Amino acid sequence: MGGRQAQRKVLARKKNATKRSGASKYVYFFGDGRAEGRASKRNLLGGKGANLAEMAGLGLPVPPGFTITTEVCTHYRSNGKRYPVGLRDQVANNLRRMESSLGRQFGDPESPLLVSVRSGARASMPGMMDTVLNLGLNASTVDGLIRESGNPRFGYDCYRRFVQMFGDVVLGLKPVSKQEVDPFEEIIAEKKKARGVEQDTELSAEDLRDLAEEFKAAIQGRLGIKFPDDPHEQLWAAIGAVFGSWDNQRAITYRKLNRIPAEWGTAVNVQAMVFGNLGDDCATGVAFTRSPATGDKGLYGEFLANAQGEDVVAGIRTPQQITRAASVERARSSDTSQSARPPSLEETMPACCRELKKISRRLENHYRDMQDLEFTIERGRLWMLQTRAGKRTAAAAVKIAVDMAREKLIDRDTAVLRVEPAQLDQLLHPQIDASERPEAIAKGLPASPGAVAGEVVFSADDAVTAAESGKKVILVRIETSPEDIHGMNSAEGILTARGGMTSHAAVVARGMGKCCVSGCGDLQIDYANQSMRIGSIVFERGDRLTLDGSNGEVYAGTVATRRPELAGDFGTFMKWADRVRSLKVRANADSPADASIARRFGAEGIGLCRTEHMFFEGDRIDAVREMILATDSAGRQSALDKLLPMQKEDFLGILTEMSGLPVTIRLLDPPLHEFLPQTEKEIGELATKLNVDAQHLRETRDSLAEVNPMLGHRGCRLGISHPEIYEMQVRAIGEAACELRQKNIRVQPEIMIPLVGHVRELSILRAESAETLAAVAKRYGVRLKIPIGTMIELPRAALTAGEIATEAEFFSFGTNDLTQTTFGLSRDDSARFLTDYIRRGVFPVNPFVSLDRRGVGELVSLAARRGRKTRPDIKLGICGEHGGDPDSVMFCHHIGLDYVSCSPYRVPIARLAAAHAALGVRPED
Amino acid sequence: MGGRQAQRKVLARKKNATKRSGASKYVYFFGDGRAEGRASKRNLLGGKGANLAEMAGLGLPVPPGFTITTEVCTHYRSNGKRYPVGLRDQVANNLRRMESSLGRQFGDPESPLLVSVRSGARASMPGMMDTVLNLGLNASTVDGLIRESGNPRFGYDCYRRFVQMFGDVVLGLKPVSKQEVDPFEEIIAEKKKARGVEQDTELSAEDLRDLAEEFKAAIQGRLGIKFPDDPHEQLWAAIGAVFGSWDNQRAITYRKLNRIPAEWGTAVNVQAMVFGNLGDDCATGVAFTRSPATGDKGLYGEFLANAQGEDVVAGIRTPQQITRAASVERARSSDTSQSARPPSLEETMPACCRELKKISRRLENHYRDMQDLEFTIERGRLWMLQTRAGKRTAAAAVKIAVDMAREKLIDRDTAVLRVEPAQLDQLLHPQIDASERPEAIAKGLPASPGAVAGEVVFSADDAVTAAESGKKVILVRIETSPEDIHGMNSAEGILTARGGMTSHAAVVARGMGKCCVSGCGDLQIDYANQSMRIGSIVFERGDRLTLDGSNGEVYAGTVATRRPELAGDFGTFMKWADRVRSLKVRANADSPADASIARRFGAEGIGLCRTEHMFFEGDRIDAVREMILATDSAGRQSALDKLLPMQKEDFLGILTEMSGLPVTIRLLDPPLHEFLPQTEKEIGELATKLNVDAQHLRETRDSLAEVNPMLGHRGCRLGISHPEIYEMQVRAIGEAACELRQKNIRVQPEIMIPLVGHVRELSILRAESAETLAAVAKRYGVRLKIPIGTMIELPRAALTAGEIATEAEFFSFGTNDLTQTTFGLSRDDSARFLTDYIRRGVFPVNPFVSLDRRGVGELVSLAARRGRKTRPDIKLGICGEHGGDPDSVMFCHHIGLDYVSCSPYRVPIARLAAAHAALGVRPED
Repeated sequence: MGGRQAQRKVLARKKNATKRSGASKYVYFFGDGRAEGRASKRNLLGGKGANLAEMAGLGLPVPPGFTITTEVCTHYRSNGKRYPVGLRDQVANNLRRMESSLGRQFGDPESPLLVSVRSGARASMPGMMDTVLNLGLNASTVDGLIRESGNPRFGYDCYRRFVQMFGDVVLGLKPVSKQEVDPFEEIIAEKKKARGVEQDTELSAEDLRDLAEEFKAAIQGRLGIKFPDDPHEQLWAAIGAVFGSWDNQRAITYRKLNRIPAEWGTAVNVQAMVFGNLGDDCATGVAFTRSPATGDKGLYGEFLANAQGEDVVAGIRTPQQITRAASVERARSSDTSQSARPPSLEETMPACCRELKKISRRLENHYRDMQDLEFTIERGRLWMLQTRAGKRTAAAAVKIAVDMAREKLIDRDTAVLRVEPAQLDQLLHPQIDASERPEAIAKGLPASPGAVAGEVVFSADDAVTAAESGKKVILVRIETSPEDIHGMNSAEGILTARGGMTSHAAVVARGMGKCCVSGCGDLQIDYANQSMRIGSIVFERGDRLTLDGSNGEVYAGTVATRRPELAGDFGTFMKWADRVRSLKVRANADSPADASIARRFGAEGIGLCRTEHMFFEGDRIDAVREMILATDSAGRQSALDKLLPMQKEDFLGILTEMSGLPVTIRLLDPPLHEFLPQTEKEIGELATKLNVDAQHLRETRDSLAEVNPMLGHRGCRLGISHPEIYEMQVRAIGEAACELRQKNIRVQPEIMIPLVGHVRELSILRAESAETLAAVAKRYGVRLKIPIGTMIELPRAALTAGEIATEAEFFSFGTNDLTQTTFGLSRDDSARFLTDYIRRGVFPVNPFVSLDRRGVGELVSLAARRGRKTRPDIKLGICGEHGGDPDSVMFCHHIGLDYVSCSPYRVPIARLAAAHAALGVRPED
Repeated sequence: MGGRQAQRKVLARKKNATKRSGASKYVYFFGDGRAEGRASKRNLLGGKGANLAEMAGLGLPVPPGFTITTEVCTHYRSNGKRYPVGLRDQVANNLRRMESSLGRQFGDPESPLLVSVRSGARASMPGMMDTVLNLGLNASTVDGLIRESGNPRFGYDCYRRFVQMFGDVVLGLKPVSKQEVDPFEEIIAEKKKARGVEQDTELSAEDLRDLAEEFKAAIQGRLGIKFPDDPHEQLWAAIGAVFGSWDNQRAITYRKLNRIPAEWGTAVNVQAMVFGNLGDDCATGVAFTRSPATGDKGLYGEFLANAQGEDVVAGIRTPQQITRAASVERARSSDTSQSARPPSLEETMPACCRELKKISRRLENHYRDMQDLEFTIERGRLWMLQTRAGKRTAAAAVKIAVDMAREKLIDRDTAVLRVEPAQLDQLLHPQIDASERPEAIAKGLPASPGAVAGEVVFSADDAVTAAESGKKVILVRIETSPEDIHGMNSAEGILTARGGMTSHAAVVARGMGKCCVSGCGDLQIDYANQSMRIGSIVFERGDRLTLDGSNGEVYAGTVATRRPELAGDFGTFMKWADRVRSLKVRANADSPADASIARRFGAEGIGLCRTEHMFFEGDRIDAVREMILATDSAGRQSALDKLLPMQKEDFLGILTEMSGLPVTIRLLDPPLHEFLPQTEKEIGELATKLNVDAQHLRETRDSLAEVNPMLGHRGCRLGISHPEIYEMQVRAIGEAACELRQKNIRVQPEIMIPLVGHVRELSILRAESAETLAAVAKRYGVRLKIPIGTMIELPRAALTAGEIATEAEFFSFGTNDLTQTTFGLSRDDSARFLTDYIRRGVFPVNPFVSLDRRGVGELVSLAARRGRKTRPDIKLGICGEHGGDPDSVMFCHHIGLDYVSCSPYRVPIARLAAAHAALGVRPED
């Protein structure tokens, strides 16, 4: 829906509800250059009805008709399917207006008025509800239609289509199960068999006339209902069916998935039929006022001559281009000779095309947005049937927004609102060229976006070796674990057979900005033989594969991709967004390389620099293990002494990269057992390498094993138990800061103590850290002012934030863990049933993706309030996956946080979401 | 401390703080039958000072003196150790009053006044702060003392004791480390060596005189301080030292452990010395107005003739009895001939004893509580030095409370307040007779109270077999797991080598009311050889052992125990408590046997009947496993069909046992993998038994394994994924209820759906359950009305309780899991560091034992409020360990819950705590 959605949210907020007038007006007329409704009455008239009224009001050629309001739907639903008093009169009056406008009579055998009856809700619900066309036909009016059109086949075809549609939609003769054949199609098939023909089009006018009668007989036979011949009876039955379709199963499911309230209801549009299939001076088509793919200005669209609207959708015939230029271009790109190319509307009906262009410009200027139009040409006369904001790609959205602002059609704030933050994701990673996309061989979850190609490897070590020799590789694993980090880092992309959107592979890959497809169930991996199988295709190590992490597709071989463009229109657009927003955006980054990407994407600091990822790199893991295995404090200290210079090196790199910007460094968080090898083989190898007793290693592993490591001995609990670890880390930070300060590099490190649940934990560790920093500063003779704060990631920390703020200079909400503990839901374990939960609507959204505002969000805002009460200048931010989710970012703006922090590749998304929030957009509830 | 503590809490609440008078009065005199203070001024005068004033005011013989208030301490601490203006004058005036009262002068070489200087805080802090005796002595006053007493050895002994005490306490000459010998004791040792004697008493008067001088020389030599000879200088130095001792390390630690605020401060009592060691007409002793062991009425106590107070405490000489009857009885029980028995005070100093009895009765009547008295007899004259409420055993507390109420000394409400709820635990389990108690061979954690003896077995199966053959056994395991439940049930008690107060063994044992000692580190178990070792003692299977779960001690062999008495005074007392309370008390019980115990202990229903424990019994576990391993719904249904009659049998039993009372049945909660065998051996056995493929079993186990099972696929999440399990359980409940209803048995089952985090989970499962119940009711033709509710055990459930209440007829707060998730702390894993956390004061109490009111408690009260707002008649309770913790019970009363539910053996504790709460007692903050 592009930016319209955002704008609508603002609008809905500004005017709480449409004012109800005292008199009871249920029906709104449009046509003849006049209209009782207008576009702003969308809530009352539905999207379709409001826009038809608007077009009619503008004097555009719209077939006359009327809209029965959504309030009638609400009344109908809550009053046992009864209509409000006065409705019948109003419908009758409006029908008369249509009749006099067109000079036709509803049910008149000479010159019958035919109408369509369509749903039209406030929000678009494509294909969810019912439509009846050609209503008003019966045995006598069909003769009038034939006389007027001079085309019996056309007349009987209209009639049999009407009976079929009415029988299905209104009377309910439809297949009971998916296995069953549609009863009407069955009759048609029999007819074709009897006539010995294959195509519907080969049936004669008489065949079609007979079909209509056979349909009616089937309805009578199967349902015991006599098909109504009275047009008024038909009309009321159709209106009731459309209102009723608001509560069909498809519509209910769609509403649930799209969070559309049942109370909204649908409007019903009754409109005079126009026909694009009366001959070669007829046509029907769709058009966009700018290219929905690229955003280029100009009319883009397709039409079919002598056809009905549904034929364009059905895709049986190939549509033709509207403009000559497009037609020429299409022929060129498809290697068709220009002489053989299908002519454009511009060439076949130049006057209509000129009018369409004029109307198109008028509508775009009027709505100040790119429009998606539907039109029909009946005997050389153009009729507009629909206009609405057009869907568009992210690239088109950005270009259209920037262009329209430059054209002064909209202001810059409006331009900023025209692009949905989530859409930007498409622009920030390498992508597969749409024209190049082959058929996928498998589909997993779109765990981390981007498109990459490379050679398959099955172990982290192989990934590193291959990458070092200059190869691009895809790491394929059943699941990944922290031991695979170095391999994930070396690989172009990651493919796993198991694991959800928040599995280890997915989370780490998103953090690294690496493409990842996870939980690809079709994948069978055979580590022993270094091969994998997808269906019947076997891939050996070294075979090539392409992943699209944006849609979860896997392709055989190498598919070409292209890199994102951050300058040009995109750069301009983001500059406008940045001018608007007040919420800062930082990135989560653990290495100088990540920090550099983050800066390029516009991050204003590092909100979460995890120190444990550093522990896994290269030889460091051995020093870490030595520390864990040490049996006395001397041994532990000796291992820590080895780690100190390495950690300092990390901090020197990151702080230099982020000079002038804050960098929040989180002290060690994961439980120590994560650093130890688990299998017998690994233990044996490590024992040899470190020259320790394998039994001691085994015992240490066992003694550190935990039932629920997420709730175990980790975070600041490690800091309390093993003060020497944090002491080393704080020293490394302090020394790095002093050394850079001495080189006149501006550094702003911040120390973050994780998993605090009780203020005493923080007061102890803060005092110890401050002491270490003071000693370092004294040694270097540098004045150090490093803020110390904490992560709020446990419900108790949020509840007691007022106490904790006495010791914390900043809070960073760790909403990943806070979500786990608030829901009592393990990220690692819940993938199995969470999908079901979301599909069945138990949870409206995945709470690990979009912040749960009722539960987790209440804790965050409560903690923010309590924290500020204690310490008004406390700095508040969030880090974790939610920091890159637009709804969550908007929530953070509205509760007054200072910043969000997310993975580098999502920084522009967060920047735009923050701008939207500043412009008043609220997250969906 | 007995019930005084509770009373004080009420008192402290009623009068927020002692009113400060406008004039600055810092010193309160007592003596000569008059006093400026009184007992109610405890906050200002400290416990000791207030009671001395009260006794003096009653006209009892109290050596005159004065109290410097706690406000002076506060001033002294916050003003750089300076005293408030006017204090020195007030002290001088009061000293003069003492002088005129006694006819002695402070510092007078002829008839010197000697004083003691002691601390005395609002709350008793025994031995934590400092005391100086015999103050006022110097080279000249000691001569006066000798002249007056006619006893040079006495005089010089007083002097050298004073110098020693003053040197230590005031001047600070003390050993620097624990290894170092006390400098004064070193000098005494040298002196004895020089004199060739062994006992202090063998030193002559001259030796003692020399010692005093040598002490002073040591002080001068080591500290460079000249010992002050001026009594006034001595006095002010001692007062400063006592105030300073409020902030010594011992006192700070004690305050932290006992949650005494530092702001309270201590008072200083300066009192004239009286001497119990001037000859055979002197004595010193302690007495209780009733027996602190049994509560029997009458003076109980001991004295030493010709001794100082500290000699009684030191325990060098064996004290004599005060009454003749006690002396006779003691001789009888210790097989001493009556002729050889030490005479009683009643016999040696009959007049003094009569006076003491009179005073004792007077004080008990005055304070309306059993008193603990200290007295000294100086040359035939009785002096009272202290009175305070006496500590007592639980049995004594109950008897004294009931007796005093019958004697009309106190009313019944006061009687109820006189027993601390936690104390009752002593009375509710079999106990080891104090007189029988041998030396323990090991000590673990007092995981579940009671004392039991039995033969050692090392496996659950052996426990069952031995128990079936009529043996009493103790199940000894490294740790227990759910697989051991049947063995724990058959055993008398459980002993484990690992695991804390909230380990599996501890929690399950407390639930069963079984004695358990957990985490007994000295225990080395050798399963292979069916033996265990404690130090050098080896126990084979069948050897006998006794456990005391109330203190964690382990004894070799069989030690006699006695069963609790629930009738008599205890019954009367509980009846009085029940009349007062409004909070209902239910029990957690999973079997008819537990339900029966619960009823006997006064439970008013079952608050938590876990259905999973039933799944482990006998052959059921096989049917459960069959269900888990089923690959299609037919297989699953067939296994569930086997389980249905067994579950129904359980419910028939429990509902019958609890007829007339509500029974809340929780549907299946633990993750399915808990029911599967884990080791290869067990898997092989089960595969054979169930005739399934071992590989399938292994794969099922692996596919169900979870990283964090606590946060995994359990509770209502199982109900959503596998509706057929809950369907079976609900059917079993419904059928049991119908069948009993048909037999006219009044049943009140309630269905509880666990681990709800989102209202949609409950709405789905509630609808399904209601449908099942309706079908059952229809089939039986019975009208069933079974309330359906949920456990609130996740922070999100508490936060969204308003929404959840739309679907829940009751909430039961599952504070065990709520504590785990609110703190992000695994019960199973935290034992390792939680002990440290509590010891170091990071957490004030173990949050799994006493409800954390700031965090978890806020969620509970918030959920209660929000739930009631949505559904005013919603029933609210808590289940879980906290339901039996007195502070937590009181919290539940005060936030307005309807009931608590706890293990059957803690029901009386909860009943009493509820009564205290109703009488206004608040939990400690």
